[in-house]
Amino acid sequence: MTLFKSFEVHLFGGSFHLPLPLIVNVIISTGAYFVGLNLIPKMKAMFLAANLSGTDMNKVSKPKIPEAFGVVTGCIFLISLFLFIPVPFVGNFSNGDKEEFPHHKFVEFIAAMLSICCMILLGFADDVLNLRWRDKLYLPTIASLPLLMVYYTNFNSTTIILPKIVQPFVGTSIDIGFLYYVYMGMLAVFCTNAINILAGINGLEVCQSLVIAGSIIVFNLVEILSGHCREAYEFSLYIMLPYAGATLALWKYNRYPSQVFVGDTFNYLSGMTFAVVGILGHFSKTVLLFFIPQIINFIYSVPQLFRFIPCPRHRLPKHDPKSDLLNYSKTQFRVSELNILGKLCYMVFKHARLIRCEESEDGVVTCNNFTIINFAILLTGPIREDRLNRLLIVFQLICSVFAFTIRYPLAHYFYEY
Amino acid sequence: MTLFKSFEVHLFGGSFHLPLPLIVNVIISTGAYFVGLNLIPKMKAMFLAANLSGTDMNKVSKPKIPEAFGVVTGCIFLISLFLFIPVPFVGNFSNGDKEEFPHHKFVEFIAAMLSICCMILLGFADDVLNLRWRDKLYLPTIASLPLLMVYYTNFNSTTIILPKIVQPFVGTSIDIGFLYYVYMGMLAVFCTNAINILAGINGLEVCQSLVIAGSIIVFNLVEILSGHCREAYEFSLYIMLPYAGATLALWKYNRYPSQVFVGDTFNYLSGMTFAVVGILGHFSKTVLLFFIPQIINFIYSVPQLFRFIPCPRHRLPKHDPKSDLLNYSKTQFRVSELNILGKLCYMVFKHARLIRCEESEDGVVTCNNFTIINFAILLTGPIREDRLNRLLIVFQLICSVFAFTIRYPLAHYFYEY
Repeated sequence: MTLFKSFEVHLFGGSFHLPLPLIVNVIISTGAYFVGLNLIPKMKAMFLAANLSGTDMNKVSKPKIPEAFGVVTGCIFLISLFLFIPVPFVGNFSNGDKEEFPHHKFVEFIAAMLSICCMILLGFADDVLNLRWRDKLYLPTIASLPLLMVYYTNFNSTTIILPKIVQPFVGTSIDIGFLYYVYMGMLAVFCTNAINILAGINGLEVCQSLVIAGSIIVFNLVEILSGHCREAYEFSLYIMLPYAGATLALWKYNRYPSQVFVGDTFNYLSGMTFAVVGILGHFSKTVLLFFIPQIINFIYSVPQLFRFIPCPRHRLPKHDPKSDLLNYSKTQFRVSELNILGKLCYMVFKHARLIRCEESEDGVVTCNNFTIINFAILLTGPIREDRLNRLLIVFQLICSVFAFTIRYPLAHYFYEY
Repeated sequence: MTLFKSFEVHLFGGSFHLPLPLIVNVIISTGAYFVGLNLIPKMKAMFLAANLSGTDMNKVSKPKIPEAFGVVTGCIFLISLFLFIPVPFVGNFSNGDKEEFPHHKFVEFIAAMLSICCMILLGFADDVLNLRWRDKLYLPTIASLPLLMVYYTNFNSTTIILPKIVQPFVGTSIDIGFLYYVYMGMLAVFCTNAINILAGINGLEVCQSLVIAGSIIVFNLVEILSGHCREAYEFSLYIMLPYAGATLALWKYNRYPSQVFVGDTFNYLSGMTFAVVGILGHFSKTVLLFFIPQIINFIYSVPQLFRFIPCPRHRLPKHDPKSDLLNYSKTQFRVSELNILGKLCYMVFKHARLIRCEESEDGVVTCNNFTIINFAILLTGPIREDRLNRLLIVFQLICSVFAFTIRYPLAHYFYEY
């Protein structure tokens, strides 16, 4: 393995070892950024001509914006990975010893790309063809199959280490077998859809994905510098950096006011990329830690997602053309018409002051839609779209800091190392 | 390796050894056929709603037909492969000996799927976004990168065996090194585009692909039964059978009169699949033999493809609404305005009677477009669309028989085994 071939760099009086593939990867990722920066504006007309466009409802002029640009970012990201794959294996080629070629490492890269490529294809098909809601659930499962296969052949470790607190009762670890694969398959479904439901204002999907990607990159660097399981974290880094490069270019055009929309393609692509590095890098629990806002949003959304409370087709904030501010969007229902779970959710959420509701004389309840975007507006009052986005991203950043706090100092209380 | 695990089957008084993965593969391929049969009609409305449609110019009523159904076939094909991958490796899982797992074989399947998936994605993007002509040339090159990587790591044999006739001069074989990779990259470009330019009448792309796929399957079976390089041919068979299953379902709806169009997606997908099995199965020359009609069409098209002779945007036959027959389509030019190569092509083609041209008094030449579809109409006179398709497919079949003749009896004269 030449994954560890490194260059010594003298900087700030200290010396660091930079692996050669990392340098190449950074160059390719920078390239991906500039290609995206250059390519995206050129493709706007093509997307509009293909009828791939949506109306930006949160603007006074209601402009028509080209949609599904995630596919451009996805292709740039994929091609960057294609160009990068040979690099970590260069040493293995030149020594001419076929037996030593680390096929098991190589297959990880290829399977990671296959899952990501498959997800881009399915996401783009969804954007173009408007697939049904339930397709969104099983498509990521399909795309994660090659990944699970590689996990099975390379590791097949289905043992989870238990927190100290339960160790006296059930031992230090437990082998959950097949359930571990179900967990990993569901991780892919969760990551893709969690980003998809925390969306709807300019730049939010891309921004949150960048924060998550940044957190994973920092986490990987910290782990590599502390010498832990270097190979797995390098693998993750080699995938996350080109992703971050390509996505940063997309953010330039998707940020408020959006010139392009990213489409489901981008959310699928991002979720799958995070799931891929989490699974093959063996830090899926840590990846989930960086998804705290998405998890909160998902739990908060459950009453509407599972239709205990009526859910309108779109739950994005409502734009007020007079003030150009966003207000929370609402749903209406009669408490008497809810099922038992709906009534329970309504009572709990109402008493915990998680929703704001008004009941009219004839018993119709009007309350905000159950997303943290609307909840943020509850707290701030009507707000400008870019400020709302900034607020939610600051929340995402705070959650990432919190995640690192859990991962490092607190984890030692719960787990032994 | 359990690729060879087999069942003994007694049939017609003889006994055959059927490998277990082959049985599973046949079942999955049959499933792919029925899923396609069921799914395609259901998705027509979805494609029409997404504005993915084209006008069938060769019908009196000029109906609007949903377009780009290759993506449906492609997804069915991919998912079939996803479900199949674990099967040939089942024995390797259960013995629990990690060291013995044939990662180098496994990576072939994954890389094959990555190339195919990538090609479906790019093909579908092309259908939706109408990419430029030159993109069609470099997209297949990109999609074939993972394949070439795997070829490099698994085989890296760049030696070609020379025909007996030149052996006294340059030896039995020659290592063409890097050029071999250029050849394989170009094979992918050729296979995808060769099918793309022999198209335009109902069912022709799908039918010719089925004949090529059938020829490859027969070739693989013959080689497996004669005990040659079994693994490589089994690999090919495991990919070609689900392809044939999924494509056969598409043909049911794409045959005259077409209910759906296949789009560039299908041509890309098919070309890449043939290139993949040719490259990783080590029989790329034989695959090219099954492309004789496409090669003839390509060579015949060269004057127009390279713009020596003016080339209209579409070269499909011209439909006569009165008789409902197809006539050859035409191009017009002045000989004096052609460049030197154009003049040369014109003179050679005219004297070889490969084109039919009329020269008006003011020097304007009107002649048929340079495709074998138009050439076939030159021979038959105005013809019904389904008959023309049948004629071209019979030609494809004859060429396949000819290919087998070259591959088996004749090859022994030129090559030693």
